[in-house]
Formats: sequence, C-alpha cells, structure tokens
Amino acid sequence: MTNHDFYMKLALSNAQAMKGQTDPNPLVGSVIVNDNRVVGIGTHLKAGEPHAEIHAIQMAGDHAKGGTIFVTLEPCSHHGRTGPCAEAIVEAGIKKAVIATLDPNPVVSGNGVKILEAAGVEVVVGIGEAESQKMNEVFNKFIVQKKPFITLKSGVTLDGKVATHSFSSKWITSEEARHDVHLLRNENMGILVGINTVLKDDPALTTRIPNGRNPIRIVLDSSLKIPLDYQLVTDKQAETWIFTSQNYDMEKRNLLIDLGISVFETSGLTSVNPNDVVHVLGDKGVSSVLIEGGGSINASFLENKLIDKVVLYFAPKLIGGQHAPTFLEGTGIDQMNDAVELTDTDITKIGPDFKFTGYPIY
Amino acid sequence: MTNHDFYMKLALSNAQAMKGQTDPNPLVGSVIVNDNRVVGIGTHLKAGEPHAEIHAIQMAGDHAKGGTIFVTLEPCSHHGRTGPCAEAIVEAGIKKAVIATLDPNPVVSGNGVKILEAAGVEVVVGIGEAESQKMNEVFNKFIVQKKPFITLKSGVTLDGKVATHSFSSKWITSEEARHDVHLLRNENMGILVGINTVLKDDPALTTRIPNGRNPIRIVLDSSLKIPLDYQLVTDKQAETWIFTSQNYDMEKRNLLIDLGISVFETSGLTSVNPNDVVHVLGDKGVSSVLIEGGGSINASFLENKLIDKVVLYFAPKLIGGQHAPTFLEGTGIDQMNDAVELTDTDITKIGPDFKFTGYPIY
Repeated sequence: MTNHDFYMKLALSNAQAMKGQTDPNPLVGSVIVNDNRVVGIGTHLKAGEPHAEIHAIQMAGDHAKGGTIFVTLEPCSHHGRTGPCAEAIVEAGIKKAVIATLDPNPVVSGNGVKILEAAGVEVVVGIGEAESQKMNEVFNKFIVQKKPFITLKSGVTLDGKVATHSFSSKWITSEEARHDVHLLRNENMGILVGINTVLKDDPALTTRIPNGRNPIRIVLDSSLKIPLDYQLVTDKQAETWIFTSQNYDMEKRNLLIDLGISVFETSGLTSVNPNDVVHVLGDKGVSSVLIEGGGSINASFLENKLIDKVVLYFAPKLIGGQHAPTFLEGTGIDQMNDAVELTDTDITKIGPDFKFTGYPIY
Repeated sequence: MTNHDFYMKLALSNAQAMKGQTDPNPLVGSVIVNDNRVVGIGTHLKAGEPHAEIHAIQMAGDHAKGGTIFVTLEPCSHHGRTGPCAEAIVEAGIKKAVIATLDPNPVVSGNGVKILEAAGVEVVVGIGEAESQKMNEVFNKFIVQKKPFITLKSGVTLDGKVATHSFSSKWITSEEARHDVHLLRNENMGILVGINTVLKDDPALTTRIPNGRNPIRIVLDSSLKIPLDYQLVTDKQAETWIFTSQNYDMEKRNLLIDLGISVFETSGLTSVNPNDVVHVLGDKGVSSVLIEGGGSINASFLENKLIDKVVLYFAPKLIGGQHAPTFLEGTGIDQMNDAVELTDTDITKIGPDFKFTGYPIY
C-alpha cells in the first residue's frame, strides 16, 4: 500500500462512519498530511455544517501550508452554505490535492479541480475512486436523476422461499441478519411495502437499533385497505405515506389525511403505478428507499427497472413447497436468456446466514 | 502451524488428490518423517493396490526406522488384500504414528492403534481429524450404514428458480459452474434424475471432463415412460438403472432389459419409493449418488431424510414468476420452525456464480 492509498483509506473510513447522518449530502472524508505526518482529519457530519475539507483545514491550522490534502470527493466550487472548498484549500496554502472521484453532478463536475489547478495546486484524481463511488451510490444517483436509489431487501430460505405454503414466515433469518436489516433501515430515507405485508403483520417498520433513524413508511395500497387502527396509522413513530391507484374510497382517504397520513394517487387504474411512486418520492427529496415488499411488489419494481441494488439474506434452511411464495413473483421472464443479471456481486457470512449484495444490469 | 500440522496437511492433500479413483476404498495419505526431513510419502491409489502407509514405507526404505509416520486414517488391522498396515509400520521400525482419525467402521475402529501401542509405537490421534472425515464423508457413511451418501445438486437463480414459468432453463449457471458439476459427476458412483428431466432434455448424464468417469444413470420412472430411442437407453456410455412403481407395463420392462437396461420395481403403488431406491443402491455397492432431479424428486428425498449434502450453484440472475419452478417443491413444510437446517455451510465464488455447500440436520 502506498502512502497515498493509506491516507485515502483513512479519509474513506471517516467518511463511511457518518453513514446515515449526512443526507441529503454525500459522505466525504479528508486528511491533510505534511512532512509525512497527519496534521488534520475531517469528515462531513451533517447537511448545513462544514464540508470535510474545512474541518481538516481547521484542525491543521498553520500546518496545512505546503501540505497535501486527501479528499474522497472533488472539493466543491460553489458558494453554498459552506463556501467553495476548492478556494479554502488554495487559501490554506496546500500544495497538492489527492481526490478519489470527481463530483457526480455533471453541472459542476471538474470545476473544483479547475480552481485548484489554476492556483497551482497539483491534483491527482482516482485513488480510491471505486470505494468512494460505492459509498455514495445513493447520492450519486439522486444528484443526477432526482430519483431515489432503491434497494430491494429480502430474507429467504436456500430454496428461495419467503414463507411456507401456509404463509408461516417467522423467522427465516437469524437475529444477526435481522439486526443488519435495521442498519439498512437506518441508512434509508424510506421503507416501502405492499398492503398485504401490512395486513398480515401490522408492522411498525421502524429502526430498532439505538439512536436509529426511522425511515418514512411508504405503503402501496391500491384501494386504501389499511385499517385505521394499525401501527402505521396511529403510532406517530415516523411519517406514513400511502400510494393508491385511481380506485379508492375518498372518505377513507380523508380520514387518513385527518390522522396525519399522506395519501398520493398514482395513474394506475386498479394497481399502484411504481413509476409514479418513484417520481413523487424523488420530487419530495427522498433519495433512498428500501423495499421490503412481497414477491408481487418486488417483481413490479424489477420489471420497471427501478431496483438499483439487491440485498438478500439466505438462511441455511430448506422448506420446499410448490406453492410456497418466493421473493420475486409476478409472471416472470419467459426465456432464461432474458434474466436480469447482477453485477458487482458479493456474499458475506452474517451469523449463520449469508448476505448477498448485487446490482441489476438492465 | 506446528510440524505435525504441516506433515498431516501434506498427507491430506495427497489423499484428496486421488478423489474419484479409490472407490469403494477411502482416500488415505501418509508421510514418513525422520530427522526433520520427509523420507517417504504415500497415497492410496486404487482399491486392490497397496494402502498409503505401504507406499510411504517402501519409499522410505531404511530411513523409516526410528521415524514418525503421519497417516490420515487409522492403519488397518486386518489381513485383507494388502495386509495389516499397523504390522507393517511396526516391522519398519517406526517409533511414532500420528493419525488423523480412527477407522469409522465400529467393528475394527481402534484395532490398528492397539497393534501399534502393543508394539511400543507412540500414537497420537486427532491431528487433521475434521478434514480427514470430510474428505471421506462418502466412505464413512457407506461403511457403517451400507447406504449411499446422497448429494443434492441444483443450479438456481438468486430467486430460487430452476426454470422460467415457461420452463426455459438453458443456461442458468456459468460454464465454470457447469464444469464443476462434471467434477461432481466424476466423484459420484451414481447420478439420479426423475423421468420428467429425461423426457424434457434426452440427457446423456455423462461426465464431460478429460478421463471423466461416468456415473451409473439412475432414473426414477414410475410407469416406464422412458422412450426406447433416448440416449440413456441406447448410448452404452454407462449403465442405466430404472426404478419403477408397482404400476408399469411388463412388456416395456422386458424390452428395456433386452436393451441392457436394469429395471428395479419399488414398493410404491404409483410413485417410486425413494427409500427402496436407496436400499437397492446400497445393496449393489453404490456408495455415492448425485441427485440432479427436479423439485419433486428433490423434495421426496429430503422429506424422507435421505439427502446427506446439498450443493447449490447460485447464478447472479433474477427471473421472477409465481409459477416458475424452484428446486424444492412438493407440499413443503407447514411451519417455518420446522425448516430443515443445514450445518457446516460454505459459499465460494465460482466464475460469476456462488457455490453453496451444506449438510442437512434431521
């Protein structure tokens, strides 16, 4: 590992550690090195607060002068709430900037580098690029497309089932895997389920970890079947947003709204149009959504190419059953050649279970 | 790693390398060390030929005297085709024996150690025990139970399917995974499928690797539907054994027998009784069977607790489909708590796919 790699890894790990607390901003970390010793570290803590580079420059004080700054994302060039970081780097007398990746926003990408180079700062781009981009996969999509980054999560048996033929499903996965799901909930701004999941379990869909952030609970409920005494309606633990088809009871809608629930109508005549859901969520600034739906919801989002990432927890169990449900139903594809392939796949052990992650290629 | 571990690993790896060529005998490796240098190595090559210890002693010659022998299985105590190895070790003047595991056959287990200790040879048992037992999992079951060790193999999509809703299934897994399946076929004495798999694909079920050993093709065909011009009947690449229910056409049976096919009737009235199949296979000395059946065959063997090991190749693909078949069908269990759990699980990457192995606990 070269020194560059070492310092960038430190910056990346400080950035990563803030996961879940910087929305809608990206995770960014920074390290300043002078004379082969670290003179400052910084990380972006919270939207509206200083960027990572500013924290690192403040910590370094006079030692920034003549030093090298490592930063996991191109320093900003705009006069926003915290000033252009590229100019702050120049003003601090820093001689070299090592940048993991350029700004994903095509409107400003490269502008920070230009400011630095114009001021005579040596710039290196690309150290730790893949790690930085993956860390900010949500931000990188949202900033460009204004649509949420959507993760499909499911806990399944080895034979692909999410319940037995009689719909018994507690518990498929281990406590360790279920804890990990709460970390996912903590990282996502919204959690999305279908009405059948709600009717079956009356779930709270909250994040059950210390200091966990509850996502907005998003329910696809085409004809507003949700009972008014269910937790999602009454518990006030987090916002609940319901998406309907064109076909619902207006009186029920008004009752829900009176109870503080948001109700959105989509263009689907009898079922919820998932593209409309994504559009509304993007407009409302929801940059990340975790789908914990059943096989039909999952299939409708996948068929509409709306799933960005798949996270599966495989429990080492077999249950069988020709009619036991799987996590991906609908009609499905016709020819094996047309299967949706996933890339950048990974499997790790989590308790007795295996956690799979991958990214669909459409 | 201590020296003991090092030498035992060498013995284990030489044993393992003979996988597929020692049936019905176990894999065994041996190393003789004297004065901190290896003076002989041996492995059991083929049933009827010398045991691993004998090869190692012959290679060591006079250098065996005063040395230490490492052997992955307890040296035999019986006067079989290759004489008792325990006595040969004593006669060679070896002073110490490090043994991975005792003989699994309760009738003779411990007898080799007794001969050695009675002759003043120091004996250590247990170094590399788990590895040795796993390496000979087939032999260890068969020698005790006289029933084949049965491996269920399936290639599946991430959503657990083995075909699309329209039964398109070519190809789910990668070339690398399919090559690995041929290694499995090479290691197993029998390969078992249902008649539907045969009718769908007219498969040869042979081992397509250089010098591959073809397993006996075992077909569960309750009413003898197999066409007489199919490869399994005509190609003479390997034996074909067909198991029926009580309900089949005697004339068809006689035609098949005339063509060199073995036909076995089981006690099932209209379907094949899997317990009878296993019983017959055991009686005929078939120590290992690879099931490449569909979801019904797999489920019937699992429900009868006949599956010893599960090997799954997960392709990073999604296909969906409420009616797309999974590798485990039947009725399935009713309550999630009653799921069949698997132990000693492992996942490794193979090409783009993931290979899972595990052992059901009944």
